[in-house]
Amino acid sequence: MSALKLELLTKDAFAPFGDVIQIDGSEWFPINNGTTKRFHNLGRVEVTGEGGLPIISMCRGDAFHLPVEVKMLERHPLGSQAFIPTSGAPFIVAVAPAKEDGQPDESQLKAFIVRGDQGVNYHRGTWHHPLVTLGTEGDFIIVDRGGPGHNCDEVQLSQVYLIESAPALD
Amino acid sequence: MSALKLELLTKDAFAPFGDVIQIDGSEWFPINNGTTKRFHNLGRVEVTGEGGLPIISMCRGDAFHLPVEVKMLERHPLGSQAFIPTSGAPFIVAVAPAKEDGQPDESQLKAFIVRGDQGVNYHRGTWHHPLVTLGTEGDFIIVDRGGPGHNCDEVQLSQVYLIESAPALD
Repeated sequence: MSALKLELLTKDAFAPFGDVIQIDGSEWFPINNGTTKRFHNLGRVEVTGEGGLPIISMCRGDAFHLPVEVKMLERHPLGSQAFIPTSGAPFIVAVAPAKEDGQPDESQLKAFIVRGDQGVNYHRGTWHHPLVTLGTEGDFIIVDRGGPGHNCDEVQLSQVYLIESAPALD
Repeated sequence: MSALKLELLTKDAFAPFGDVIQIDGSEWFPINNGTTKRFHNLGRVEVTGEGGLPIISMCRGDAFHLPVEVKMLERHPLGSQAFIPTSGAPFIVAVAPAKEDGQPDESQLKAFIVRGDQGVNYHRGTWHHPLVTLGTEGDFIIVDRGGPGHNCDEVQLSQVYLIESAPALD
């Protein structure tokens, strides 16, 4: 078992894995006669494969509590997948880049704590841990690929990575 | 000037115009070893036209207060457009079906009040009023079409429709 440290989520740190969807610090332009600020194109939805369609779903995730074990990852080879909180729940994201053989590089495993006003959009094929809502049940928008085809790979990691504590959120 | 009554938003009432994106009353199935309920495919993202891509954006809408005037509508001929609150703000949606000539049928104009735990996904080409967040500033996820091409038509209505009061929300 190894310790895995939670980092604060920033666009730069997450760039190899996906998009951070947040208003804070994002550029905007006015729409609707100036009554609305649009923070444009924060995440691109990728859909590939025969019969694939971009769809909007929601989910409700159980509350997890520290310590949290990371011992498997999954990826969606045919499309991106976004999780954006609608009830303000913080959550944990664990991701790893792929090695040359396509399997996750555990030596580069990273974990981020995501504020309740941030979302993530995993790029197509990015290894990531399933949803871990921290401390409270949480509701989320999901934007991902619907349609036929094999769109989920799972892999067990070589050991358990343990997240024991979380940094303070602003 | 005519009065326009706000109705509560339901999937059935909104079906001619788009999807209602909400957990309440929607079917789900378990994912992530039973720790997450997935409310699947609540809205389909439509993208047409050369170079079009589905994108995720956010917006922040000013607070509006009753009475609210509806005197124009817009539509996006190349794609659907979803608005889903992330800060729990209720909002007003006004929609109209198209006549044979493609222009909005004002005799069928409808207005709905949308709870802060509901979102809407306007079908491609649906005439709708720009965002009206009710009583408070509100943050929203937008899922719509990015890319080149003419994707917004606006029309002035023949008169002003006045929304004077709102029904109680649960």
